[in-house]
Amino acid sequence: MSQPPISRFPVPPRDELPADLADRFAEVEERSGFLPNIFSALAWRPDEARAFFTMHDALMDKETPGLSKADRELIVVATSAVNDCLYCVVAHGAVARIRARDPYIADQVAVDWRKAPLSPRMHAVLEVATRLAAEPAAVTAAELESLSAHGLTQDDVWDVGMITSFFALSNRLAHFAALRPNPEFFLMGRVPRGR
Amino acid sequence: MSQPPISRFPVPPRDELPADLADRFAEVEERSGFLPNIFSALAWRPDEARAFFTMHDALMDKETPGLSKADRELIVVATSAVNDCLYCVVAHGAVARIRARDPYIADQVAVDWRKAPLSPRMHAVLEVATRLAAEPAAVTAAELESLSAHGLTQDDVWDVGMITSFFALSNRLAHFAALRPNPEFFLMGRVPRGR
Amino acid sequence: MSQPPISRFPVPPRDELPADLADRFAEVEERSGFLPNIFSALAWRPDEARAFFTMHDALMDKETPGLSKADRELIVVATSAVNDCLYCVVAHGAVARIRARDPYIADQVAVDWRKAPLSPRMHAVLEVATRLAAEPAAVTAAELESLSAHGLTQDDVWDVGMITSFFALSNRLAHFAALRPNPEFFLMGRVPRGR
Amino acid sequence: MSQPPISRFPVPPRDELPADLADRFAEVEERSGFLPNIFSALAWRPDEARAFFTMHDALMDKETPGLSKADRELIVVATSAVNDCLYCVVAHGAVARIRARDPYIADQVAVDWRKAPLSPRMHAVLEVATRLAAEPAAVTAAELESLSAHGLTQDDVWDVGMITSFFALSNRLAHFAALRPNPEFFLMGRVPRGR
Amino acid sequence: MSQPPISRFPVPPRDELPADLADRFAEVEERSGFLPNIFSALAWRPDEARAFFTMHDALMDKETPGLSKADRELIVVATSAVNDCLYCVVAHGAVARIRARDPYIADQVAVDWRKAPLSPRMHAVLEVATRLAAEPAAVTAAELESLSAHGLTQDDVWDVGMITSFFALSNRLAHFAALRPNPEFFLMGRVPRGR
Amino acid sequence: MSQPPISRFPVPPRDELPADLADRFAEVEERSGFLPNIFSALAWRPDEARAFFTMHDALMDKETPGLSKADRELIVVATSAVNDCLYCVVAHGAVARIRARDPYIADQVAVDWRKAPLSPRMHAVLEVATRLAAEPAAVTAAELESLSAHGLTQDDVWDVGMITSFFALSNRLAHFAALRPNPEFFLMGRVPRGR
Repeated sequence: MSQPPISRFPVPPRDELPADLADRFAEVEERSGFLPNIFSALAWRPDEARAFFTMHDALMDKETPGLSKADRELIVVATSAVNDCLYCVVAHGAVARIRARDPYIADQVAVDWRKAPLSPRMHAVLEVATRLAAEPAAVTAAELESLSAHGLTQDDVWDVGMITSFFALSNRLAHFAALRPNPEFFLMGRVPRGR
Repeated sequence: MSQPPISRFPVPPRDELPADLADRFAEVEERSGFLPNIFSALAWRPDEARAFFTMHDALMDKETPGLSKADRELIVVATSAVNDCLYCVVAHGAVARIRARDPYIADQVAVDWRKAPLSPRMHAVLEVATRLAAEPAAVTAAELESLSAHGLTQDDVWDVGMITSFFALSNRLAHFAALRPNPEFFLMGRVPRGR
Repeated sequence: MSQPPISRFPVPPRDELPADLADRFAEVEERSGFLPNIFSALAWRPDEARAFFTMHDALMDKETPGLSKADRELIVVATSAVNDCLYCVVAHGAVARIRARDPYIADQVAVDWRKAPLSPRMHAVLEVATRLAAEPAAVTAAELESLSAHGLTQDDVWDVGMITSFFALSNRLAHFAALRPNPEFFLMGRVPRGR
Repeated sequence: MSQPPISRFPVPPRDELPADLADRFAEVEERSGFLPNIFSALAWRPDEARAFFTMHDALMDKETPGLSKADRELIVVATSAVNDCLYCVVAHGAVARIRARDPYIADQVAVDWRKAPLSPRMHAVLEVATRLAAEPAAVTAAELESLSAHGLTQDDVWDVGMITSFFALSNRLAHFAALRPNPEFFLMGRVPRGR
Repeated sequence: MSQPPISRFPVPPRDELPADLADRFAEVEERSGFLPNIFSALAWRPDEARAFFTMHDALMDKETPGLSKADRELIVVATSAVNDCLYCVVAHGAVARIRARDPYIADQVAVDWRKAPLSPRMHAVLEVATRLAAEPAAVTAAELESLSAHGLTQDDVWDVGMITSFFALSNRLAHFAALRPNPEFFLMGRVPRGR
Repeated sequence: MSQPPISRFPVPPRDELPADLADRFAEVEERSGFLPNIFSALAWRPDEARAFFTMHDALMDKETPGLSKADRELIVVATSAVNDCLYCVVAHGAVARIRARDPYIADQVAVDWRKAPLSPRMHAVLEVATRLAAEPAAVTAAELESLSAHGLTQDDVWDVGMITSFFALSNRLAHFAALRPNPEFFLMGRVPRGR
């Protein structure tokens, strides 16, 4: 079967983008080697695109002792799997493999995080995050405190909640637009360097 | 029982806010008569706050023939009720009552939108929106087309999806922070003017 | 949109009611200022109406140290919200506001009772009641004993179960008949007296 | 294992019952050969017991062309199975076998009514009844009309809804009190007469 | 209504079976007095039939101190009830009644195993088995250890998992083929011998 | 984190296996380049192992016009994803990539088969298979007929049901034993040959 289009909604040509978005997209493309489709799909709504990428970077480009960049990507993988979101599982699974330097962890977390070989801290994080994703009213104050007991700061705890919340948005947008992951993501981080 | 605090996370004093947020908050307070707690609760994370309110305004401060401001608020009420989100149901229920000039519609939509006295167009909109909120993988291309058949433009259809997605974020953040609605919201739009 | 009829089933004229029902309805109307639609909707089935109101009054018109009238109304609000029953949430929410002298509590309990500012006793009561409403086979003997530990007598515990069970009936009947709440209920108990 | 008691709540001695209940119980016992435990378990709450049995008899002791006594029992069996209610499945299963003169139908309907050898009319009835039992907000006006198309009168349609609603009460009460079915019910209607 | 056929798929005549299956079927028929329909329904696929009955006998024809033959049948009854499988509930319910010499236990376990009069050991077994049947990813290592604490050997624990897994297969096959239970099963083990 | 063991249950040394299993395992290992862990994990129960692999091969090593070997693997991937089974998603995803000569299809089907670029025939197959996996009582005769309308023979339709049923067993066994996929599976079929 031929692959479906990137999105159910219009994808503007690159040369028609507002200058700030064009710059941002060029920078991402240079760094990654390709432009992830979420950029293309959001471009027809410049204000929403700007807010989306600002929020994304504020949450994901951050490394703390309690929540590494790899940990943040695994929150995305686990909660996006709850929502059966192909784009987010595949794209953030790729980033998670690279950041964790582990070719197996993304699939392990996406399919069955409960048995994945992770620290007790990350099991506690994913327990809270997947509950917030699936049944938000059921998250209790005691669960937030359990994260502090595992060494997360108040800022880290907020990040667990906000990353999960932000990808609750992303997963739904990706389903609604039938956003297609770039082919590059499927193999990234699976083959040992130097091979 | 005494009321719980506004949020489980720090709420910075108004005079310590960055200038742009302080201005925005002052403007909202003047227009509404009080500052909704979501502003106070997000203020400790200025970048996320800016992105959040930009996205919100881009989606909600818009009136189109296919999707009025009142219609947009009712999408928020219906999908936030799916997530049992007190803040969003109460705050956006208040705005919905005012924008729709109907003192009953917010409760009708929050508790049982399927029997609410709405147009076939809005029933189709809420059918798609509540499915996207609850079971995003189940939304089909055919459902998006059904919205066009009811007169929504492509932009309106996107807005249905993006509003629902944005409040999937808001509902989860509000649950995670135990965000408390301002008392003012409960009565707004219920008492006929001139009374 | 114009409002739908009171019920999908016949509503007999007041002057054709059996004498005992006519008397009861007149008394309710005098006390409340209007006749709640559940009375009108059940009137075409006099035997069922008599049994229904007898059961209702036996359970709800009772004040005990372990379970006040306001507490009983909040059980109705919380379990009717589980069932998305507009009539019961709106009508009993109104009574709950009045009996608890609290303009916020009904909405708080209807949308998210777990975070509502209630006593530990009432949290235990609503935990059991909402489980009985949603998943009756899962209620355990230990849960009933937890209510006794909060000071409920054996009679109070039964009342928690029987009120929940009775409104499992009412909620379904209200959905089946598409019973519409009287407009008066929406505002009752929200405006401070003397205003 | 020894059998548990009839109920988690007090069961008053027969000679301490109010006269009207004592008479009713004696009559039932004479007709059935034993007193079903639901009578014993409700006796400590005479007002609720009177209302309960009045409602029960008004709905179940009725034979119409659109809904026979056996059909009514099968609604009870199917919806009580949705709620995993042992007392109602076993007791009303027994009555259903006798009224339908069919030793298999109660188990077939309790475990998997969708494949049970029933008329299209009864399949439509059980479709609506089990949805009302499990997910009451999802029952639509079109489904009620589908019952009329199968020959049910408006009274019959109401009975489908009210029987289901009444047993939503009974099932929950039976779970809450851990009501135990009388041993006699298990075998009733399974052995051909004359054997 | 007339009864439906044994299966939605072809049922080969007994005299066209491969010799080994014909022998096995004859032996079962002699021992039981009739040939259970699962044999007839699988016969058109001889390889699958051989594997199916080999697996079945390896798991069910075994008596250990930690898991008797009757216990094994009750695992089948409880987990098949989770899947609403008429054939397995009725056929294995019959065998359970006979092996447990208890005319009530099969119905008690099928409808509401949580309140069934069973040992703490069997309650722990059914807790794990029904969770594995309904939500397999949620079974934890700690739950398996809880079975050992109740005296099950490592082999017994495996058997709990494998019996449940095997009947997850059987229940689905029975639904897919609309497999009908033999009438004989409904009454087996209900009537005291010597009656 | 170090990887967990292959299984929670004993894994016998290769040189202690019964001769027929040792031969079968050696043959698989030679063909695949490694021995999949399911073989090792089942070896301590030789009778069950023999039945398991016989059933597996009878269903999966078959190519028909209506259901190719790749199609059969995709049924496994889709239904195992419903059950969050890491072993089956990863191992059969690998085989599916190879048999379909498509490096993307396994992830697409595992995460969101509804939007995967498959033929209408395979969408109908996965619709029935995933319903049978998740909610077996809901599969109707009409759905089986819909498969015939897509060109499946009666044998193919049975295979859809039996493959799904067999992996309902496998998924549960894999969860119960915490079966770990071999590392080789994760990369198989992702890298174009000749690279």
